[in-house]
Amino acid sequence: MKTRMIHMSPPQTLISVFILFITLGTFLLKLPSATSNGITFIDALFTATSAMTVTGLVVIDTGTAFTLFGQVIILVLIQVGGLGIMTFAVLIYMVLGKKIGIKERLLIQQALNQTSLGGVIRLVRKLFIFSITIETFAVVFLSLRWVPEMGMAKGIYASIFHSISAFNNAGFSIWSDSLSAYAVDPLVNIVITLLFIIGGIGFTVVFDLWKSKEFYHLSLHTKIMLVGTLCINVVSLFMIFILEYNNPDTIADFSTLGKLQAAYFQAVTPRTAGFNSIDISQMEESSLFYMLMLMFIGGGSTSTAGGIKLSTALIIVLASITFFRQKEHVTLYRRSFHFHLIMRALALTVGSVGVVFLGTFVLNLSEDAPFLMILFETISAFGTVGLSMGLTGQLTLIGKLTLIFIMLVGKLGPLTFAFAFARYKPDPVKYPNEDVLTG
Amino acid sequence: MKTRMIHMSPPQTLISVFILFITLGTFLLKLPSATSNGITFIDALFTATSAMTVTGLVVIDTGTAFTLFGQVIILVLIQVGGLGIMTFAVLIYMVLGKKIGIKERLLIQQALNQTSLGGVIRLVRKLFIFSITIETFAVVFLSLRWVPEMGMAKGIYASIFHSISAFNNAGFSIWSDSLSAYAVDPLVNIVITLLFIIGGIGFTVVFDLWKSKEFYHLSLHTKIMLVGTLCINVVSLFMIFILEYNNPDTIADFSTLGKLQAAYFQAVTPRTAGFNSIDISQMEESSLFYMLMLMFIGGGSTSTAGGIKLSTALIIVLASITFFRQKEHVTLYRRSFHFHLIMRALALTVGSVGVVFLGTFVLNLSEDAPFLMILFETISAFGTVGLSMGLTGQLTLIGKLTLIFIMLVGKLGPLTFAFAFARYKPDPVKYPNEDVLTG
Ligand SMILES: [K+]
Ligand SMILES: [K+]
Repeated sequence: MKTRMIHMSPPQTLISVFILFITLGTFLLKLPSATSNGITFIDALFTATSAMTVTGLVVIDTGTAFTLFGQVIILVLIQVGGLGIMTFAVLIYMVLGKKIGIKERLLIQQALNQTSLGGVIRLVRKLFIFSITIETFAVVFLSLRWVPEMGMAKGIYASIFHSISAFNNAGFSIWSDSLSAYAVDPLVNIVITLLFIIGGIGFTVVFDLWKSKEFYHLSLHTKIMLVGTLCINVVSLFMIFILEYNNPDTIADFSTLGKLQAAYFQAVTPRTAGFNSIDISQMEESSLFYMLMLMFIGGGSTSTAGGIKLSTALIIVLASITFFRQKEHVTLYRRSFHFHLIMRALALTVGSVGVVFLGTFVLNLSEDAPFLMILFETISAFGTVGLSMGLTGQLTLIGKLTLIFIMLVGKLGPLTFAFAFARYKPDPVKYPNEDVLTG
Repeated sequence: MKTRMIHMSPPQTLISVFILFITLGTFLLKLPSATSNGITFIDALFTATSAMTVTGLVVIDTGTAFTLFGQVIILVLIQVGGLGIMTFAVLIYMVLGKKIGIKERLLIQQALNQTSLGGVIRLVRKLFIFSITIETFAVVFLSLRWVPEMGMAKGIYASIFHSISAFNNAGFSIWSDSLSAYAVDPLVNIVITLLFIIGGIGFTVVFDLWKSKEFYHLSLHTKIMLVGTLCINVVSLFMIFILEYNNPDTIADFSTLGKLQAAYFQAVTPRTAGFNSIDISQMEESSLFYMLMLMFIGGGSTSTAGGIKLSTALIIVLASITFFRQKEHVTLYRRSFHFHLIMRALALTVGSVGVVFLGTFVLNLSEDAPFLMILFETISAFGTVGLSMGLTGQLTLIGKLTLIFIMLVGKLGPLTFAFAFARYKPDPVKYPNEDVLTG
């Protein structure tokens, strides 16, 4: 195994390790003690993939179909997948006292999306401590609500499960209606959304904030993520609030404060968290359509979130606006973007659209469901969001296999897959330029 | 008027002239002699816009609701819009014996999407002769079928109407089921598809082919368009044939040859032509989904077609593949693409996605129809295609206004609108580069 790993490129290793953990998870979930009434192989594979890719789409109900043992397996897969397999690899290396060479560091660098090699190990340690700390705090706060309600054991367990699931943007819940019972509960709303927003903005942003004292000193990436996250969340809150205001199946019966809470929750959850506090299938089509965009965009780089990432979307839009305004250099906050970065964002977006297109096409053939329901499911899987209009439970075998593939590509990113299979060849002779008519 | 036009930039003038002609068309269609039973203002506006932008979406049936006079108005708007208002402007200038200055040439250049100023007038003259010649040939061939069938006057009129409508990729038909009666008629299939393929590939390609003797000598643009058009049409034929093979409401009852003809027609028509020989609303959802992509892509630059254009789509995909393969220079046929070209293609695509997104969002609120039907209608309007799953006839006022706007933006292109409103400011001081994490 060691010898083979050395011959693999970092992207190939990442993919292999993910597949390895998913396989392991599948077999563990197939154990009789993991489920109440047994589980088919494909459902175990789907659940393991959904957990390991922190998606949260469920073919069978997490709370009733799985035993405590089964749920703990899911939780472990979530933590492993969310924190990143590589963090664990480093920890194992450290525990075993092995020397961490350049090759391993490169691998970790790839996994954590870091642009410089230095201090990667220190970073991983910080990351691990950071995650555990946040999750522990959240468990305490959530216990304040759930221990009085369900008793000590059940309350603490519910707090641990939802805390890990939320911080890792996994969206798994032990309740079949997700967090609908707490749609107007301020404590649950605040703790859960804070968890997945912090987990989903990317640890580089959090660490940068921790270090820096003024906005001016923050990195360009941090500035983009902070301002972008704030803007998109405020706009989305406004949109969902307006669109659902009179919908009797979602928020119409709540008080204004309750409406605001539920709208806020549903506005921030599509960018990967995947919990829901209102019934998704009952939302207005315009809300669902708007959420398609949010799910496709997703959270931040180096986070537990999926999607093309908010920074990618912003760069694409910024580059387009720059062209529309007939300017040459794409700039923001007194910094310019390199051509290579725009190309990367473009390639990522086009690759992602391609995966979603293919997935939707296959599901359109294999599933008997309205188009929006299918598109919603595909983008939810790609963005590792986990929201569903209700298709997951009635998927065909081909549908399940397709979504398993899409969740995996969505979590690891189209670039990882492309780089895993592409053979690097240097550019051939330089060719002369020629113009082509567009538009 | 003259004075004001001189102060307008070419994009502003283009938009103004289009709006002027649409207004004129609207009032002509409101004349009692244009319709059998009258027409509302909004329906006249919609029809005039649909004709002038060569879209072909119809709120009322062209063949029965309009008199011969009304149909001729529509036909004139199609020819004016399709050939490009600018061609006509040049002709008027020439007829009046006026000198054509740099300003006018620039305007024509903008309208015809030419990259060099020289010989624009000659080009316009050639373009006009070219169009009339092709259309005349087509009338002769179509008359061979329709004169025996309908008599001399009706047969020739039908031939003229469909010939102009097809060459300009307008998709208007005097029959309410479009060309469904001729789904397995080889003559009609061949003539009509040749018309809109030639009209839709762009005259630069046709003229380049006319001049050049070998593939090697063709411009990069021509090569891309020829190979691209061939590939996408063959793949689409294959797709529609397979997907619809067993659909009893479309092609299942035809012979294999008939199936191939109908599949071919439906494979080539979504990239802007907009005629249909089978019932769109009865097609498989997977076919319709696939056609969404074709409609969004559209035909060639400097053609009567709409959409982001095939070359734009190919550049976007090629640039992404280049990045995926970790190469630096985007190359094809021993030529490299300039960064500016890729930025242009990116901006065009993002702007187009934005328009389609907004349009779909508004229609989702204003119309009571399935999501796919709405998305199909919006992309059809944006690509000036004119295919519909049946929504056009039942649109609300807001729906009609939205689609009118989208057809106009689709025909003139998001870049024309952006450039019309953007004020050019030179780039400020050059800022240092900074990296941002993506994906
Ligand atoms: K999720
Ligand atoms: K059309």
